[in-house]
Amino acid sequence: MNAFTPTDRSRVKRLHERGKYDEATIFPILDAAFIAHIAYVIDGQPFVTPTAFWREGRTLYWHGSAASRMLRFQEAGVPACVAVTHLDGLVLARSGFHHSLNYRSVMAFGTAHLVVGAAEEARQLDLFIDRLYPGRRAELRPNETQELKATTVIRMEIEEASAKIRTGPPKDDEPDYALDCWAGVIPVAQVVGEAIADPLLKAGVSFPKGLAGYAPGARFDALLKDCADKLG
Amino acid sequence: MNAFTPTDRSRVKRLHERGKYDEATIFPILDAAFIAHIAYVIDGQPFVTPTAFWREGRTLYWHGSAASRMLRFQEAGVPACVAVTHLDGLVLARSGFHHSLNYRSVMAFGTAHLVVGAAEEARQLDLFIDRLYPGRRAELRPNETQELKATTVIRMEIEEASAKIRTGPPKDDEPDYALDCWAGVIPVAQVVGEAIADPLLKAGVSFPKGLAGYAPGARFDALLKDCADKLG
Repeated sequence: MNAFTPTDRSRVKRLHERGKYDEATIFPILDAAFIAHIAYVIDGQPFVTPTAFWREGRTLYWHGSAASRMLRFQEAGVPACVAVTHLDGLVLARSGFHHSLNYRSVMAFGTAHLVVGAAEEARQLDLFIDRLYPGRRAELRPNETQELKATTVIRMEIEEASAKIRTGPPKDDEPDYALDCWAGVIPVAQVVGEAIADPLLKAGVSFPKGLAGYAPGARFDALLKDCADKLG
Repeated sequence: MNAFTPTDRSRVKRLHERGKYDEATIFPILDAAFIAHIAYVIDGQPFVTPTAFWREGRTLYWHGSAASRMLRFQEAGVPACVAVTHLDGLVLARSGFHHSLNYRSVMAFGTAHLVVGAAEEARQLDLFIDRLYPGRRAELRPNETQELKATTVIRMEIEEASAKIRTGPPKDDEPDYALDCWAGVIPVAQVVGEAIADPLLKAGVSFPKGLAGYAPGARFDALLKDCADKLG
């Protein structure tokens, strides 16, 4: 089993039985997500920025405007921490103390660097599009050189990562099970709504077949993981 | 209009027309969310931790085990950055470059401190329960002293905050509108599923009337904001 080796930085201490370090646990949590929260430090001040990301092997990528303060700062190689979180349910217990959440989360550590080279930058951006929207890259006009110049791609090889997962019903103190208090789980999930065509859409253009997975009501996490699995 | 005064730390630089600093924009984004991502720095290393949070006035609160590494570190008064993010839609444009997201996000800066005093700690934890689950506190057994001792509540008065919002259809380069390429928005939202009673639920106990807002299919963000608004 391929696994990351935790150090003090990434080891799950609280409720450590919920902590996992293997790729087989961590990668599916990452691949089912679209937004990561990326923490970095400028002059001692912590910042955290939500951003779309993607994964290739043990490396995470994100991108943005070449003028972005975050990306310009990260280009040089700086410590970063990336969190990905799926909220799966609210856990209502019979005491305030035992209320909890069902969730899947990953915390990954590494050093952010600029992706150097126009070819690799373009390849990563194509991967990002096709990872989200199967087959879409081929349906778009080619990127313009100026667009690639205006875009920065950052990579972070994962040095350490941990996953933390909670599932299932509440766990109450034994005497509390006798109370007349409702307890259980209220599931929460990100779902896809009905696509809204651009009001300026050219007449006769239909919704792409490659995006059939984006059906109204589909779970976004499952759909994203399917897209990632298809890319291999 | 009450607003935060941005400095270089919080001013939205990229796409600055999307940036807002007024409470009337920022508070509803916070109140519609359950999870925040909190960044902090230990020995120069950035960390970001997802956690449930709540708001009272200009102060954000979060809590956890008194043994939590994050909370023990934050007790003393350390700089923190809190991000709250709602993904509202995927924006598909006619070029890779103009693909985007619809979202509402807040980045808040301040100093994390321990909430001192058993009475205030208990009051905040009650607020947290009732903010999420209207009327639930009264249905639970009282907190035990030992439970309060085992729990730490952290507060962070917001010193600066900015909101960033994108809505609406893609914005393409003028010539691209003639392309035979589908463009539009695929909405994404967090929704509530059907409640799952604890298998060990006492016979005859029904789902609380106060939680009627947690109806299957309800939007979680709208529901949370309603709960917050009810508390005043």
